[in-house]
Amino acid sequence: MTSDNKQSPIRVDWSGIGERYTDAEIDYVATLMKTTQSTFTQGGLQTEFEKAFSEFTGANYSFAVNSCTSALELAATICELKTGDEVVIPNHTYCASAIPFGRTGATLVWADCDAKSWVVSAETIAKKLTSKTKVIVVVHLYGLACDMQAIMALAKEKNLIVVEDCAQALGAMSHGQQVGTFGDFGCYSFHTHKNITTLGEGGALTVKNKEHAALLPGLRHNGHQPFSGPRDRYWVPAMVNVDQTPIEGIWPFNYCMGEVQCGLATQLLKRVHAISAKRKERAERFKAALSDYPELVFQVQPENQQSVFHLLPARYDGSKTGKTNHDFIDRIFTHYGIKAIVQYYPLNRYPLFEKFGFGHADCPNTDFLFDNMISFPFHSWMPEDQFSYMLASVKNTLNDLRG
Amino acid sequence: MTSDNKQSPIRVDWSGIGERYTDAEIDYVATLMKTTQSTFTQGGLQTEFEKAFSEFTGANYSFAVNSCTSALELAATICELKTGDEVVIPNHTYCASAIPFGRTGATLVWADCDAKSWVVSAETIAKKLTSKTKVIVVVHLYGLACDMQAIMALAKEKNLIVVEDCAQALGAMSHGQQVGTFGDFGCYSFHTHKNITTLGEGGALTVKNKEHAALLPGLRHNGHQPFSGPRDRYWVPAMVNVDQTPIEGIWPFNYCMGEVQCGLATQLLKRVHAISAKRKERAERFKAALSDYPELVFQVQPENQQSVFHLLPARYDGSKTGKTNHDFIDRIFTHYGIKAIVQYYPLNRYPLFEKFGFGHADCPNTDFLFDNMISFPFHSWMPEDQFSYMLASVKNTLNDLRG
Repeated sequence: MTSDNKQSPIRVDWSGIGERYTDAEIDYVATLMKTTQSTFTQGGLQTEFEKAFSEFTGANYSFAVNSCTSALELAATICELKTGDEVVIPNHTYCASAIPFGRTGATLVWADCDAKSWVVSAETIAKKLTSKTKVIVVVHLYGLACDMQAIMALAKEKNLIVVEDCAQALGAMSHGQQVGTFGDFGCYSFHTHKNITTLGEGGALTVKNKEHAALLPGLRHNGHQPFSGPRDRYWVPAMVNVDQTPIEGIWPFNYCMGEVQCGLATQLLKRVHAISAKRKERAERFKAALSDYPELVFQVQPENQQSVFHLLPARYDGSKTGKTNHDFIDRIFTHYGIKAIVQYYPLNRYPLFEKFGFGHADCPNTDFLFDNMISFPFHSWMPEDQFSYMLASVKNTLNDLRG
Repeated sequence: MTSDNKQSPIRVDWSGIGERYTDAEIDYVATLMKTTQSTFTQGGLQTEFEKAFSEFTGANYSFAVNSCTSALELAATICELKTGDEVVIPNHTYCASAIPFGRTGATLVWADCDAKSWVVSAETIAKKLTSKTKVIVVVHLYGLACDMQAIMALAKEKNLIVVEDCAQALGAMSHGQQVGTFGDFGCYSFHTHKNITTLGEGGALTVKNKEHAALLPGLRHNGHQPFSGPRDRYWVPAMVNVDQTPIEGIWPFNYCMGEVQCGLATQLLKRVHAISAKRKERAERFKAALSDYPELVFQVQPENQQSVFHLLPARYDGSKTGKTNHDFIDRIFTHYGIKAIVQYYPLNRYPLFEKFGFGHADCPNTDFLFDNMISFPFHSWMPEDQFSYMLASVKNTLNDLRG
């Protein structure tokens, strides 16, 4: 960093918290802590949340889990992948989209993002399919829904399992239907960064098929299963049964989310669309205000694909100025105290994936996007004066770089 | 169940909640929800909790995790078990003690519990050791510390890794030293049933060796690692690094516990010893009041081995009455409305372990204990009048069964 970096106080920083709690939500948690009688996990609030989540998303079956990673682990497990099977997955995403599929022993095949929407499409996925492809992982990145009609048509034609990573896209719609309800599995995050958060960690898994759904309670909670048939005495032969799922060779997990978090999630669901609307208004105001600056290229939202605007990424086009995204990030940080960042290092570039043999990707759009990426702080509770200052500073920085 | 069962209202039931929250703890959570600025996970409250947990237990290194199962998964992973390796583990324990070790592909070898203390001992473990044994899992069941001096001497002699499952035994001491700090790993639970709970789910892992501790932050959080060496710019090459641990072939996990739960855990640690003291007073009162009834045999606490009295189990000795624990449980339920249960079905009897080939155990003490087991409701916040009623009803039931 340049020396004046140290002198510049940070005026607009990232918050790890996407959205704050209302007083009513805080009171609700306090009341649960005080009055809950029966259990703080695997109880009625989980059931209530799962019902509310299915109603909200339109999913057939919903399950609370402790993180979106765990939702992806469960989905990857049920896919019954074997060594040699291929999983097509974008390399422009957070690492947790891919890790659970890597753990199965399957081969990760990186799909490029679309040049304009920055998410995968039926076209970019189709290029990577082989006779070994068994699963495609679709990531609705930055909150933007992928075109699920086209992707599901491809999956049907090729008989592929579809896992939707909706970590950033709760409530986003593709062709009027919520993401996470097209594919076989939908994986959602309530991590602290997300549009809603269950005290920092949490998630949900939606499932299309009854047969898959039947596996979930046991897989999620240490193999606990109902006893088959009626029992005369509640303690015979034991209080609970612990059994394998019908998937051979699979040990169960413990991915439960506690009752307080489940209860809070149910409350937060009521605000998801309002939060998205606020984010949308700001994102559109930002883009409109910068429409005279072709140096900043934003994620294009195709017709019929909604976004919940989880993040505010841009690509710096230096073709006229001769400058780069690095010049921009450096200048806005050191001169204006705004911490812009880059996001979603192509997964194949990380040592983790390189060491497992997945270091190669033929994904030019991903490389071009990342290598020119600027992502702006965008938590929904950022004070309006900070947001306005950021917007003005972006303009100033763009002007500075024009020289 | 007998027909009068249906007429008897339950007067003393199990609560899934081991201990309730104080108003101060509830206020603390509400304040965190309102005022936390930077992040709700992987922040300063996690660091503070881990420091407090090391100070409380005397452990070298502590890590917050989302459950004790996750702590055991991490420990099992770091053990680097391979097919053919043997793990000696009690079959008298909760299934999560064993599942993570089963997942590694190692062979589970069941150790018997001691006939009197109902936990494993150096003697019961020694009987199961072979040249293939690599790890021993020690479970401080019901809150009672195993004799860790003797077990560690055995482990040292045979060069074995020791994992302590302290899910039920936070704060218990063996020879004046806290459990979880003798072995290579200590695994703790803050699940809703436990003496303290972090909103229903949560846990901690303690680690003895620096080399193991260095693996934990990355293994716990999707492989996030510091970049090696200084970086000129905070965003180059990316915001975070994602790498493998030095353990070949291991994909990282996501086992984080959120900041609110970490903060709450730090508060609850201040009350652990007071909670244990209250449990101890009640358990001892219960046992003393029933000292004239040799039909009820309690867990014997050997010299130098403390208990934190997580549960109140007993064995029914029907040698004089000709009755069984089933007669007792049935009668106290139907006549007095008290829900006694049985606990810790020998793991080898569960279909899960049978199907993986671990259906056989030569553990006569475990079989004898379980087949005569009665466990009484024992949450620490049970009202005194309920506790007194339960104690009187136990006496009445024992008298009834004497006929």
